[in-house]
Amino acid sequence: MTTYTLRPIGHVESTLTDRTAAPRQPDEGAPDAWLVFDDRYAPALEGLAPGTDILLLTWLDRADRDTLTVHPRGDATRPCTGVFTTRAPDRPNPIGLHTIHILSITDTRVHVRNLEALNATPILDIKPLLTPGG
Amino acid sequence: MTTYTLRPIGHVESTLTDRTAAPRQPDEGAPDAWLVFDDRYAPALEGLAPGTDILLLTWLDRADRDTLTVHPRGDATRPCTGVFTTRAPDRPNPIGLHTIHILSITDTRVHVRNLEALNATPILDIKPLLTPGG
Repeated sequence: MTTYTLRPIGHVESTLTDRTAAPRQPDEGAPDAWLVFDDRYAPALEGLAPGTDILLLTWLDRADRDTLTVHPRGDATRPCTGVFTTRAPDRPNPIGLHTIHILSITDTRVHVRNLEALNATPILDIKPLLTPGG
Repeated sequence: MTTYTLRPIGHVESTLTDRTAAPRQPDEGAPDAWLVFDDRYAPALEGLAPGTDILLLTWLDRADRDTLTVHPRGDATRPCTGVFTTRAPDRPNPIGLHTIHILSITDTRVHVRNLEALNATPILDIKPLLTPGG
C-alpha cells in the first residue's frame, strides 16, 4: 500500500521526559507546556487566540507501531481489546490527539495548559475543536 | 527536521469521488460509506461495536500541503486566516478527523453513516470519541 510522509511543523517543550511517568490523560497531572513551531509556519498560526481551546495533533514518536491489542489503561486484569477501541499510544499510526487551552502566544511559541505529551514530541497539526457531528 | 512514514491501515469506499462536489461537513449531505481495513489489522478492530460513535483519522491525499492561509469555507469575501484555525483539507499534514456512527461490521469492513471523505481516501487510525479535557 502507498505510504505517506509526515513533516513535523514543530515540537513540544515540556518538563515531561519519561513515558512511564507521563499521565495517561491531561486531567491526571499533565504540566503546562510550549508548542514551538518552525518559523516557516507562522502564517498558518494567524488567528489563533489565547484563551481558546484547540485540537493538537502530535506524532507519538516513542510508540510501538506493531501493537494491535492492549489491556485498557495498561491494567493486566482487564481483558485485551483492539487498540482502535482505546487511546493507547502504541498503534500502527501513533497520532496523538489533545484538546488543549491556549494560555499565551509569543511569535511562533504557544503556551498551553495541561499537555500530556512528552518533551520533543513532534507536532503535526492544529485544528479547531470538534463540534458535534463534525 | 525528522520525517515519519504513515502506513495506511485501510481505505474508504464511498460514492463521493469529486473533491469539488464533496460536502465540507458531514451534516451537509455526506453519504454512508464503508471503511475497508487490511486483514492484518483485524485484531486491532476487536471491540468496535455497531451503534457507537468513533473518531476516524484519514489522510487527505488530494490536499495541497503548501497552503498556509485560506478564506474560511472557501468564501473569498471572508478574510484569509491561518489554516490551523480552520478545518480546510489543504494544510502541511492533511490529516482528516471525522466523528462517525458505526452502522454495522462485517469482518474487516465497517459500514458508517455520513462520511464526507472521498472514495479511496487512506485510513490512518480509529480512536474512541474525545471526552471533555481528553
